[in-house]
Amino acid sequence: MPQGTLLYAQSGGVTAVINATASAVITQARARKVKVLAARNGILGALREELVDTSKESAATIRALAHTPGGAFGSCRVKLKSLEEDRARYERLLDVLRAHDVRYFLYNGGNDSADTANKVSKLAAEFGYPLTCVGVPKTIDNDLAVTDCCPGFGSAAKYTAVSVREAALDVAAMAETSTRVFVYEAMGRHAGWLAAAAGLAGTGPDEAPHLILFPERPYDEQDFLARVEKVVAKVGYCVVVASEGIRSADGGFVADAGGGKDSFGHTQLGGVASFLAGRVQHALGLKVHWTLPDYLQRSARHLTSRTDLDQALAVGKAAVQYALAGRNATMPVIVRTSDAPYRWKIEPAPLEKIANREKTMPAGFIRRDGYGITAAARRYLEPLIRGEAPPPYGRDGIPKYVVPKNVLVRRKLPAFEA
Amino acid sequence: MPQGTLLYAQSGGVTAVINATASAVITQARARKVKVLAARNGILGALREELVDTSKESAATIRALAHTPGGAFGSCRVKLKSLEEDRARYERLLDVLRAHDVRYFLYNGGNDSADTANKVSKLAAEFGYPLTCVGVPKTIDNDLAVTDCCPGFGSAAKYTAVSVREAALDVAAMAETSTRVFVYEAMGRHAGWLAAAAGLAGTGPDEAPHLILFPERPYDEQDFLARVEKVVAKVGYCVVVASEGIRSADGGFVADAGGGKDSFGHTQLGGVASFLAGRVQHALGLKVHWTLPDYLQRSARHLTSRTDLDQALAVGKAAVQYALAGRNATMPVIVRTSDAPYRWKIEPAPLEKIANREKTMPAGFIRRDGYGITAAARRYLEPLIRGEAPPPYGRDGIPKYVVPKNVLVRRKLPAFEA
Repeated sequence: MPQGTLLYAQSGGVTAVINATASAVITQARARKVKVLAARNGILGALREELVDTSKESAATIRALAHTPGGAFGSCRVKLKSLEEDRARYERLLDVLRAHDVRYFLYNGGNDSADTANKVSKLAAEFGYPLTCVGVPKTIDNDLAVTDCCPGFGSAAKYTAVSVREAALDVAAMAETSTRVFVYEAMGRHAGWLAAAAGLAGTGPDEAPHLILFPERPYDEQDFLARVEKVVAKVGYCVVVASEGIRSADGGFVADAGGGKDSFGHTQLGGVASFLAGRVQHALGLKVHWTLPDYLQRSARHLTSRTDLDQALAVGKAAVQYALAGRNATMPVIVRTSDAPYRWKIEPAPLEKIANREKTMPAGFIRRDGYGITAAARRYLEPLIRGEAPPPYGRDGIPKYVVPKNVLVRRKLPAFEA
Repeated sequence: MPQGTLLYAQSGGVTAVINATASAVITQARARKVKVLAARNGILGALREELVDTSKESAATIRALAHTPGGAFGSCRVKLKSLEEDRARYERLLDVLRAHDVRYFLYNGGNDSADTANKVSKLAAEFGYPLTCVGVPKTIDNDLAVTDCCPGFGSAAKYTAVSVREAALDVAAMAETSTRVFVYEAMGRHAGWLAAAAGLAGTGPDEAPHLILFPERPYDEQDFLARVEKVVAKVGYCVVVASEGIRSADGGFVADAGGGKDSFGHTQLGGVASFLAGRVQHALGLKVHWTLPDYLQRSARHLTSRTDLDQALAVGKAAVQYALAGRNATMPVIVRTSDAPYRWKIEPAPLEKIANREKTMPAGFIRRDGYGITAAARRYLEPLIRGEAPPPYGRDGIPKYVVPKNVLVRRKLPAFEA
């Protein structure tokens, strides 16, 4: 039996399947007779010594986590700085790990978390504390380096493609006397992966989405409006998908331009879709509707991609295996071995190569005119949204999502202001 | 074999299941050897003599309509006025019906459409033209009189409840360091049915949604903000569901107050959620996110309620039966015979009693404090979102939605400016 306890923590924005990863981690650790603590609210809980005793959760609850969105133990948006700048926090973290005999630290997040896990492993080595740190990938932004794709992205991508397809059918039916232009705002501040996924909603040149605005290309209002007008003239309506991160040629976020003052003189919260809708209505005089799905796109467990769920489970299982095998400072990443048929496997990659890097879309994924995706993008994206994995539903018509009891273990250390 | 042709038309905002009604109409008519024409873009197509020959569509397409959202033949937002004011259009309509030997007119829509169908039946009688007019209920607003509920509402209600539950799990995970308040904007300009359905997302007093804003109650900003603050203090975060139709005490729509000027001085398109989010951020200094699902909530066929789908099919089938039985100026309505177990049946009701009326929520459905639903509301709403009826998905991960060929029959009359 392996020695010591495993600490699992979630970090950053949650996804529809990060709890599936948690479920796989706990299931695999239980199979190997390893005790699992989960940090309450991510790294904050680790620093505050707020540690959930997952042995208090039933097997049924742990299984149900695999179909429950959100972050079951809580996550947080806290980034530790360098070892020098944040020395006190790193040392406190090590104190907490030591106090609870944690020998395996699994940090489930994006590139910031990979960086933190990497730094913790270095500090442990410096102090001669036997600790294996493993990063576990997660982000709907799909912007992690090395891995072919990121758990969480496929489901958000499927939500995006399906929602755009459905809304487009609605707009098509109404366009003759009502809405002519529909704008969908996709998440993705720096990379247009989710906006690109919307491209899977249609195939023919007249099928929605007709125009996709990527953060990788500068927003040119005149060109955009001219294209909207042209699509409406040809198709009868126009469905636009805009990444929240699009910028004008001067580098400013278009979303920030959208925020103005409301009729009380208060700051009006902006948004790309609302801004574009206003411009279309003002400049072209067309009736416009827009949607801001916001958190719905990353929590829609009811519309999870089977591929994504399988990968979220696989990285959780592999992370425990790597930890117990002493593969320190690694992350299980997804390696694509074939597009058609789609095949993938999990392999360990050094955290060093993932920490603090950001993967943007290859230029070859954006159509030459800048407003759509290429066949290469489609080949890459399509397998990621493939397959369905609906949650079980209750008699009340709502999915049977669980909330763990989250019983904290007794504190052993003095309080700490995290 | 019954004599003459049946004309089917869709009207007003489409839903996730109006095509299921269309599918049932065509299937039932085919079984009775009755030819079905479908008006292109609703009543406009009937006036313009743009009539789809549904016999050109395969049985597979007609079956697939039952799992396809939007309005397959097109809908429109056109309301005919009184027989006196709109005489020319009513007479043209009768000319078109006569030219194509239409003896059965099925109008699938809300209370406006019930009114139109009723008027057409009167005019036909006046001219001695043998025509049976049947209204077919449809609206996500659930505001039709007589019928216990409206096809289209249950699925939008399920979308609302599930989406709020999912987003709440996301917010709960992030609240410690990120979003504290989340605002969801539900459709419903005059009645809070969809906002009320969000109440099904949780049960306990601390479960989301914590506050629902109904159009039936005046929006009191000070009271609202105080409650948000209290919920955040107690629960850690607050999920708000606001109906787009909420008004302040002076009767003005809150959404209209939200529209201001953007940084270019252009009119900023408003919205209730964006407005409330701005107020919460400004007055309470809490981080806030909001969502405007817009058309996604009424086109989400992937999340249809089984009850709703069954009822959408049942009213379609019954409408054809009523038409062929000569039950003129009626509408098949849903009669609830039992809450638990939920039982319902279809009965004919006179269009006269449905036309131009609006059913608002019973006062007993809104909690005394004005911010939640009662047990009575729950008893009414819960069966309507019960059961799942997912569409088939393709290998590409997208539901297999169909677009009919929509081949128009040859015109027999001169053109008409509708």
